Amino acid sequence: MSIINLDYLAANPLLPEVQEAMIEAIKKNYSNPSSQHQLGDEAAAALQQAREQVARMINSPVPKEVVFTSSGTESVNHAVKGVAFSNAEKGKHIVTSNIEHNATLRTLRALKMMDYRVTSVPVDEYGLINPSDVADAIRDDTILVTIMHSNNEIGTIQPIEEIGQITQEKKVIFHCDAVDSVGVVQIDVQKLGVNLLSFAANQFYGPSGVGGLYIRRGTRIWPLLDGGVQENNKRAGTENLIGIIGMGVAAEFATREMEFRIKHARKLKQKLIEGLQSRIEDILINGHPELSLPNLVSASVQFIEGEGIVLMLDEENIAASTKSACAAGALQASHVLLSIGRDFADAQGTLVITFGRDTTEAEIERFLEVLEEVVQTLRNMSPLYIKAMQERAEGVALS
Amino acid sequence: MSIINLDYLAANPLLPEVQEAMIEAIKKNYSNPSSQHQLGDEAAAALQQAREQVARMINSPVPKEVVFTSSGTESVNHAVKGVAFSNAEKGKHIVTSNIEHNATLRTLRALKMMDYRVTSVPVDEYGLINPSDVADAIRDDTILVTIMHSNNEIGTIQPIEEIGQITQEKKVIFHCDAVDSVGVVQIDVQKLGVNLLSFAANQFYGPSGVGGLYIRRGTRIWPLLDGGVQENNKRAGTENLIGIIGMGVAAEFATREMEFRIKHARKLKQKLIEGLQSRIEDILINGHPELSLPNLVSASVQFIEGEGIVLMLDEENIAASTKSACAAGALQASHVLLSIGRDFADAQGTLVITFGRDTTEAEIERFLEVLEEVVQTLRNMSPLYIKAMQERAEGVALS
Repeated sequence: MSIINLDYLAANPLLPEVQEAMIEAIKKNYSNPSSQHQLGDEAAAALQQAREQVARMINSPVPKEVVFTSSGTESVNHAVKGVAFSNAEKGKHIVTSNIEHNATLRTLRALKMMDYRVTSVPVDEYGLINPSDVADAIRDDTILVTIMHSNNEIGTIQPIEEIGQITQEKKVIFHCDAVDSVGVVQIDVQKLGVNLLSFAANQFYGPSGVGGLYIRRGTRIWPLLDGGVQENNKRAGTENLIGIIGMGVAAEFATREMEFRIKHARKLKQKLIEGLQSRIEDILINGHPELSLPNLVSASVQFIEGEGIVLMLDEENIAASTKSACAAGALQASHVLLSIGRDFADAQGTLVITFGRDTTEAEIERFLEVLEEVVQTLRNMSPLYIKAMQERAEGVALS
Repeated sequence: MSIINLDYLAANPLLPEVQEAMIEAIKKNYSNPSSQHQLGDEAAAALQQAREQVARMINSPVPKEVVFTSSGTESVNHAVKGVAFSNAEKGKHIVTSNIEHNATLRTLRALKMMDYRVTSVPVDEYGLINPSDVADAIRDDTILVTIMHSNNEIGTIQPIEEIGQITQEKKVIFHCDAVDSVGVVQIDVQKLGVNLLSFAANQFYGPSGVGGLYIRRGTRIWPLLDGGVQENNKRAGTENLIGIIGMGVAAEFATREMEFRIKHARKLKQKLIEGLQSRIEDILINGHPELSLPNLVSASVQFIEGEGIVLMLDEENIAASTKSACAAGALQASHVLLSIGRDFADAQGTLVITFGRDTTEAEIERFLEVLEEVVQTLRNMSPLYIKAMQERAEGVALS
């Protein structure tokens, strides 16, 4: 039986055209793009083509501004550590938000152990940052503002353009972690006013383990990987050419299909939210109702645990995710959900449902049916639920 | 016309079995190994298999000690920076050698800008390090010794086991850059006594852009990439699973074919050196005559430039390399060749010829024939050569 994939965030399936291009690259047996002979020239040409495809996707006018990396995580590490290390003499203060991805959070934690200082701005109940909070947080010794474009747990999209205006006025380097946005919604690095922007191929039907970092010309940043002169001297190491070729084709299709993908996802998202709200009582939809990713729904199912839901869905051949399991593997509540005001219990009951261009309405329908049953089954076993229902009944009786 | 590849060091061609495994992985469309559902389980199993294959190749008893990275360069950066940052309170002194790869050199250069101090031990005319020099260089504040296993320009293999004994006695962390050795000669991490060992798949017929770092349990080291808990919390970022699967198969074959590969390469190397010495006058063979990689010959052709030779070989469909072009792309002499006592001019005339399991004696023969002509053509245009020949003739006339 085929599996209904509602965990696109973990990794998008490869587009057939991406698969074809990667298989062709494997058969071609490319040499090293840095080599001095004709075998190297062929590889260099393939690398350049991919760079142009990716640059077009984010509207970078200069393909050289695109640096290929091994993941969104590497891109974020490169951006944050690269700016921190190269600007240490100017200052050691960094501004971020309360709901960043672990790639940013844990990078900043490492930097704190090296005497960097971090100010983290809060978000409102929808997960939105107030740009004036960012402006207020910037000090004389601030060398970097790092804010995500969209949140990977609740989907809320931040006012990056406004923050970009602030950082440009205050002449502070601005990095935007756009891993969950690039290829999903329109991203224009010129319009956003960012110096650095991170993204990853597996969010737009390219391979896992291939990422990109946009570095605006003139941005003061050290490499994360020192060594050879690859990637215009910005990122050493022989390139993962097969993966990069796949990313290039994926970028080409993301640019071409963007409108269709957004429209399709919005329709599914609406159906999903309506279905959840009509079928399941005591469910909270997280994130901003409009300023949000079209391909993600976060729902806190009260009185039960997300882990249990995911396990039971898996038995019914539906793949979904909680995203609440913490870094250490312990059952810890998501810092994002706590930041928007969810309590510990509701955070534990949260599902992150992500889908894509090949997801059908029938799959959403099937998911809703199964989820309704799963939730009822789990709630019937949940002391929390039983207690809440008793209290509610007593409340009704008393009133 | 097919091309004779004598630049295996830049990138080995993929083994047919590696190609097949990678193509199968692409078609399988694996999900994310970290996911909580059955799609994730399949991916996690494939990842684990590759880790075991790689661990066997280097005789690591615990597969978890193998961390997948995006290149040999990343592995070296991870090892050197990871130890430097995590042990900064103990000291900031690092011991290395004069002939390391740029991945180490430029990483150390970055660390020097962060107040780390580096002692670099010399090499003899064969490129060999004297272990007692390493012992003498270690101070109370030494936190790391980083020495390469074999040199990528001259092939010389260092006495790593003896250095490992010294670092163990002195309780200093020892990293070995074995990028050009793993999969080429037998590497046994237990025997070598290293804490950290770097390697890359494209040196043993696996894909480019996939590397590994052996981290002995208990070694104090920070991640280079902070974020998720992938790779046992040692290297964040969604894995390049397609590439890693390719590396696993390549490792399996390297283990199985090791004896044959070494024997075959030694035969070709002998033929090559004898051919060079008998056909071309004024040629210097670099590196140690015995303690050396079997698949590499470095030859300095006097009075002409390596770049010219490579270009003319390319016209005859032979791929070779100089490896003397420096990081900045300028015509700078190799630090390795200068370290073993070659002068600037001889260093400029150096070819690095690398070959592999599919290289034939006929290809070596054809290369020797073409090279003989190319060298004569270039020398006939070289003022340096004409002057040297005139002086030699006068010397003969005078004597």
